[in-house]
Amino acid sequence: MAQEKKRNVIVGQSGGPTAAINSSLAGVYHAAKNLGYQHVYGMLHGIQGMLEKRFIDLADHLKTGLDLELLKRTPSAYLGSCRYKLPEINDDKDLYEKLFAILDELEIDVFIYIGGNDSMDTIKKLADYGIITGSKIRFVGSPKTIDNDLAYTDHTPGFGSAAKYIATSVKEVIRDGWSLELSKGQVVIIEIMGRDAGWLTGSAALAKGEDCDGADAIYLPELPFDVNAFVTKCKELLRKKNCVVMCVSEGIHTEDGTYISEMGNSNGFIDAFGHKQLTGTARYLSEIVARECGCKTRAVEFSTLQRAASHCASRTDIEEAFECGAASVKAADEGDSGMMPVMVRTSDDPYKITTDIKDVHKIANAVKLVPREWVNEEGTYVTEEFLRYVRPLIQGDVDPITVDGIPRHLYVPGYHELL
Amino acid sequence: MAQEKKRNVIVGQSGGPTAAINSSLAGVYHAAKNLGYQHVYGMLHGIQGMLEKRFIDLADHLKTGLDLELLKRTPSAYLGSCRYKLPEINDDKDLYEKLFAILDELEIDVFIYIGGNDSMDTIKKLADYGIITGSKIRFVGSPKTIDNDLAYTDHTPGFGSAAKYIATSVKEVIRDGWSLELSKGQVVIIEIMGRDAGWLTGSAALAKGEDCDGADAIYLPELPFDVNAFVTKCKELLRKKNCVVMCVSEGIHTEDGTYISEMGNSNGFIDAFGHKQLTGTARYLSEIVARECGCKTRAVEFSTLQRAASHCASRTDIEEAFECGAASVKAADEGDSGMMPVMVRTSDDPYKITTDIKDVHKIANAVKLVPREWVNEEGTYVTEEFLRYVRPLIQGDVDPITVDGIPRHLYVPGYHELL
Repeated sequence: MAQEKKRNVIVGQSGGPTAAINSSLAGVYHAAKNLGYQHVYGMLHGIQGMLEKRFIDLADHLKTGLDLELLKRTPSAYLGSCRYKLPEINDDKDLYEKLFAILDELEIDVFIYIGGNDSMDTIKKLADYGIITGSKIRFVGSPKTIDNDLAYTDHTPGFGSAAKYIATSVKEVIRDGWSLELSKGQVVIIEIMGRDAGWLTGSAALAKGEDCDGADAIYLPELPFDVNAFVTKCKELLRKKNCVVMCVSEGIHTEDGTYISEMGNSNGFIDAFGHKQLTGTARYLSEIVARECGCKTRAVEFSTLQRAASHCASRTDIEEAFECGAASVKAADEGDSGMMPVMVRTSDDPYKITTDIKDVHKIANAVKLVPREWVNEEGTYVTEEFLRYVRPLIQGDVDPITVDGIPRHLYVPGYHELL
Repeated sequence: MAQEKKRNVIVGQSGGPTAAINSSLAGVYHAAKNLGYQHVYGMLHGIQGMLEKRFIDLADHLKTGLDLELLKRTPSAYLGSCRYKLPEINDDKDLYEKLFAILDELEIDVFIYIGGNDSMDTIKKLADYGIITGSKIRFVGSPKTIDNDLAYTDHTPGFGSAAKYIATSVKEVIRDGWSLELSKGQVVIIEIMGRDAGWLTGSAALAKGEDCDGADAIYLPELPFDVNAFVTKCKELLRKKNCVVMCVSEGIHTEDGTYISEMGNSNGFIDAFGHKQLTGTARYLSEIVARECGCKTRAVEFSTLQRAASHCASRTDIEEAFECGAASVKAADEGDSGMMPVMVRTSDDPYKITTDIKDVHKIANAVKLVPREWVNEEGTYVTEEFLRYVRPLIQGDVDPITVDGIPRHLYVPGYHELL
């Protein structure tokens, strides 16, 4: 039986950008071309741009092997991202019809969406609509999130690089803080991303080693946060050392669910998924501690740096992101839809990973939290099991491609204007 | 005539730490040993620790060539730093007597202090007291400050690495900010160190290149800052693009001298030199812009990361820091006192530097600002001349020494307890 001629692939990026999301894009492109697809289109700003027929042919932008290498080293979503929430199918069939008409017009066989929980919700809805309408388009997700909170996968691309940046930076901030002795001591409070899951904040513990005492305490959002207990802990630590370094997740909240950042009156931007911008946690706590402990305090927010710092990426992460992108295309090529490739760890040391494929219906909107037993009893540090899990993910550096002293990224003149 | 036997060297680090200050320490040690000095002592926490007879013999800590290489890659003051202001000689002769007695007891021939303007004030006073009392100890400074505001030297060790970190990070934050399209746009405000001098903030302009449009505006502390003009500029830019990135110095202030950070009510720690902790500038402006422009805003502070990020150091800077440390010992060895080695640029491209030696009486407490003609007329960006000056200083990377995925620093077990 003659095999049907393969047509086109379209790929989009969604949600918060990472240092590895473009490596997955490179993996998608590379695999799609190898598997014989004609065009690989990139939707600009995800499904939101797709609905406005905004896309590019990636071949126009990835002309050489060097372009692909630069793409792997470029932070943030090369195609642009979005936080667009698809309505339920029954609530707006017209929108689905419009979207599928655009995909048919482009002769799409394979639709890849690189993203986290919310993006897998998009894949789920599109795959469901495809089944209902008998579409032959296959919809496959490719995992991505610095938060590492996707279920059914050992970890997510993007997490390892963010964890490596956090560990490196926490170690540098600790050294810096120690240098000056102050009569009343100093408390440095570092705020790390992670609304619900403490994987990134816990990674601050990687700073500890033979050459660094590490942070003094680490607070994850999985456990209720008590401001008074925090202040007491600072006071205790100040009796023993001159510079105390505390790491807190942006998502820490009190027993009744009030985010600490809300107490600090941040300007409170809310995105399309109803998530509030959490920022100002460290600042609020540093003001409380300055008042209660009478010492100098400093609030350090890693802000968007922790998700964008390609210059400090983990080679393990960048390579796995590429493989996940490629695996998503292979899965779709083999007929899967409504699925996402996952990573399965078979060994910590030596670190060994295989891939599998899982149903996005299970993954979408689920959240994988740090297990309670991976946090100490007091709730102020992660355990050795946590470190054994995270350490392999930050190994290796990506050889930089540097021009004029700073890392080079992939850019095509006029590209941003085009978008 | 028989040459007198060389005795000992003592070295201290002072003021804000940098990514290169330990490379100068390595240079001091290396040169002192090469020149045949017996012991090289390190004062712990600078002159403040010295007064309490807190010091180490560096030979106990720098045992191998690898230790010296690790020291060059270790951020923040290895010996600990201080912000101790020596009184005027006439105000407290007892203190000077005490200090010189300690130095005589240690059989010191050469006293090296690695620091910025305030530290050169210390060298000046000690050298003056030495002349008055006929001491044979030679007091020489070694330049260090991320702020690059020392007079009579082309630039200062520490600046290049901070500038490289800032350029790299601004570029990554710009990419990150661009990724999400928001209906009302977004303004990201990046706060960069520099109380009086805008060298670091201006270095954000290095992010611009063929692959990056760069920041949209850059505000240095040398020019008066107008909050209303800033908001107007944001509004104008938001009409043209979705994500606006503004870089501001922490030291920006209004025409009448009020720091913008003061308007934001930071907790206001004041150090021994009377300098107020300036922080919260970006936060304050982001709140104003959110209100006035009705868009999402994000305040990014590079905080202590910009002075501690050894993982992103400039090789040019680390090598020059080492040379300056070595040059300070050589100068003292040749009989200079009350002096500091400076760098003299003979060519931008190819970049060529020679060293000279200058009187600290001229350098101490003087400040080198960005010339007005290196800022555009509107006061919102640096010129090509500025970039020609800064670009050579961020070239080259330092090969990392990595253990378990993160950079290794020099540390001796028990060392911190010792201090």
